Amino acid sequence: MKPFPHLTETKDPWLLTPGPLTTSLSVKQTMLRDWGSRDPDFVAMIARIRAGLVALAKGGDAYTAVPVQGSGTYAVEAMLTTLVPRTGKLLILVNGAYGKRATQICDYAGRAYTVYETPEDTPPEPEAIAAILAAEPDIGHVFAVHCETTTGILNPIAEIAAVVAKAKRKLLVDSMSAFGALPIDAKTVPFEALAASSNKCLEGVPGLGFVIARKAALKDAAGNAVSLSLDLAEQVKALDAGGQFRFTPPVQVLAAFDQAMAEHEAEGGIAGRGARYTANRDRLIAGMRAMGFETLLPDALQAPIIVTFRMPADPAFRFAEFYDRLKAMGYVIYPGKLTVAESFRMGCIGRLGAEEIDGALAAVKEALAAMGVADPRPAAT
Amino acid sequence: MKPFPHLTETKDPWLLTPGPLTTSLSVKQTMLRDWGSRDPDFVAMIARIRAGLVALAKGGDAYTAVPVQGSGTYAVEAMLTTLVPRTGKLLILVNGAYGKRATQICDYAGRAYTVYETPEDTPPEPEAIAAILAAEPDIGHVFAVHCETTTGILNPIAEIAAVVAKAKRKLLVDSMSAFGALPIDAKTVPFEALAASSNKCLEGVPGLGFVIARKAALKDAAGNAVSLSLDLAEQVKALDAGGQFRFTPPVQVLAAFDQAMAEHEAEGGIAGRGARYTANRDRLIAGMRAMGFETLLPDALQAPIIVTFRMPADPAFRFAEFYDRLKAMGYVIYPGKLTVAESFRMGCIGRLGAEEIDGALAAVKEALAAMGVADPRPAAT
Repeated sequence: MKPFPHLTETKDPWLLTPGPLTTSLSVKQTMLRDWGSRDPDFVAMIARIRAGLVALAKGGDAYTAVPVQGSGTYAVEAMLTTLVPRTGKLLILVNGAYGKRATQICDYAGRAYTVYETPEDTPPEPEAIAAILAAEPDIGHVFAVHCETTTGILNPIAEIAAVVAKAKRKLLVDSMSAFGALPIDAKTVPFEALAASSNKCLEGVPGLGFVIARKAALKDAAGNAVSLSLDLAEQVKALDAGGQFRFTPPVQVLAAFDQAMAEHEAEGGIAGRGARYTANRDRLIAGMRAMGFETLLPDALQAPIIVTFRMPADPAFRFAEFYDRLKAMGYVIYPGKLTVAESFRMGCIGRLGAEEIDGALAAVKEALAAMGVADPRPAAT
Repeated sequence: MKPFPHLTETKDPWLLTPGPLTTSLSVKQTMLRDWGSRDPDFVAMIARIRAGLVALAKGGDAYTAVPVQGSGTYAVEAMLTTLVPRTGKLLILVNGAYGKRATQICDYAGRAYTVYETPEDTPPEPEAIAAILAAEPDIGHVFAVHCETTTGILNPIAEIAAVVAKAKRKLLVDSMSAFGALPIDAKTVPFEALAASSNKCLEGVPGLGFVIARKAALKDAAGNAVSLSLDLAEQVKALDAGGQFRFTPPVQVLAAFDQAMAEHEAEGGIAGRGARYTANRDRLIAGMRAMGFETLLPDALQAPIIVTFRMPADPAFRFAEFYDRLKAMGYVIYPGKLTVAESFRMGCIGRLGAEEIDGALAAVKEALAAMGVADPRPAAT
């Protein structure tokens, strides 16, 4: 197999990771310009991005989108610390690192919370959420992760939203690795706010997070934040008033995101993007299983975002060597983040299609052969 | 005059602003790649950037550089809220918007502070700082702005550092618009930490701030921060341990910054960059004064970063029209931010030289003629 067989656009390896991702050349080429951040053309770009994000969530007039400079975690922190009042209390659903991260954010900001934790391969039970909300009336908000990148598990966000709404509480969603590929419709999946980033399923470059929130929630949130930079209520006020960011925006990152959103729409929006990622996932899992690899999750829980594979039991399989061999052939994969079992991960997202998945599978096969691993099955569990 | 006479590299207007700035094409071209954030090449790039920043401040082994995703304000907020203990107290020197912003940051984070404010065209008096520090022994840190972008005034950072050191307090510097063009030597200008960004005198693209701090200060700062994202102590711990960011870095922005730092060094470092900006400033001021414009500041206080001009008194001079005409000719200027007098600003920083300054001056002349403004002098003060 030739190195980098499919690299018509770039000499970089394909990134089968949870991000930063492989982006299109046309997205990256928008960054060859300098923009004045107060320039009317740039201000129009910000407005276009914000409106496009609300439309993707089917938020209508009740919602607004607030971009946040920084990474996705900045957006999650801005959402939690702006929307949960200083004296409020949050229920945090944890089945991976990103749920845990929300507890850290609350520790820093001094927000009270209750944790409902399930194992990394187990979604939360809606009935259990309802029971906690009934037992703890001081909980005002519930935090859920849409797709936990730790494992790639799809959490039942619609069911969670339903029990939270029934209990008259407010749902805050970390939809970081799902938004843009998995539908979330504000009309049928009621949420107070949702955080994600430029650099996941929307296939922009990293450097920008965003929160899609009910306008009313942001109006009520004045004075909650503990950080000037991460005060969503002030951020939206400035954006609504003058169309500009309070503090210098990453202009090239925004230009790339604007282009990425246009390419997302051209691909058929969430349905089109989700279909490609689903095909990538199915092709990847089928090919890996044919070689003997096993996925951590049953298919019913597996989101089309990133797949966790159990580490082969054969002592000839050394992950560091596997990683390096794949990279040399043009494919970057990702280490595992599990606490329960040794694993590694391969992403289905970014500018990848059938050809790149097939290339990655061929590279995996070649790496196994080179390491002398005949059977990559994990130890029996 | 032809539109865009000098645009050999880009069709964008020249940005005579405090940032985002005009950057070189070679800086922007580095963004045509996708980087895995855990890739060894990328990890080496982070290390190179960090070491280069410490070297620019002549920090030696006692200092480290901590990049912070987001804007420059994020870095200032990370510095203040990580290094000033929760029960600490800060003296904030204010003579413009960026000094005031530090008071806002403290309000959010619940940090106690005293303000020493001077008018926007007046630097703080070292003796007055000494008197405040003597009178208020609970003040542990002093915050100063190196060059206040509000006016372009150069604050006497060496004298401030000397009185702060003599009083055995710690200096935190916002060197946002100065670092990279105006020298600050940790050996002779003792500071505890200094914040700046990728997008000012180092001529990278926006999306990254950084703090250069004493290693010992960061070690002592555990538990101070009120924000997970902006906790410098945790950020440096992760970067030192594994070479990687805690949360997704803006990989293209970092690649551009790496190239920008190489170009800074090739220009002769701080001395070379500062000399070009000084020549830009002198050429700009001489040309504007020759037409009748007046600067806000006396020359002795004028940093080679951005120049504030008093608004012409002639009612035929309308700033919005002036701005639009200049932009149409390829030059973007900046509105004033003064509270004391009507003004506008023109920057000397970014990838600009004599040719671009001359082009801007010719455009100003043409705009005045088109508006029928014979004499752009301000009202007598």
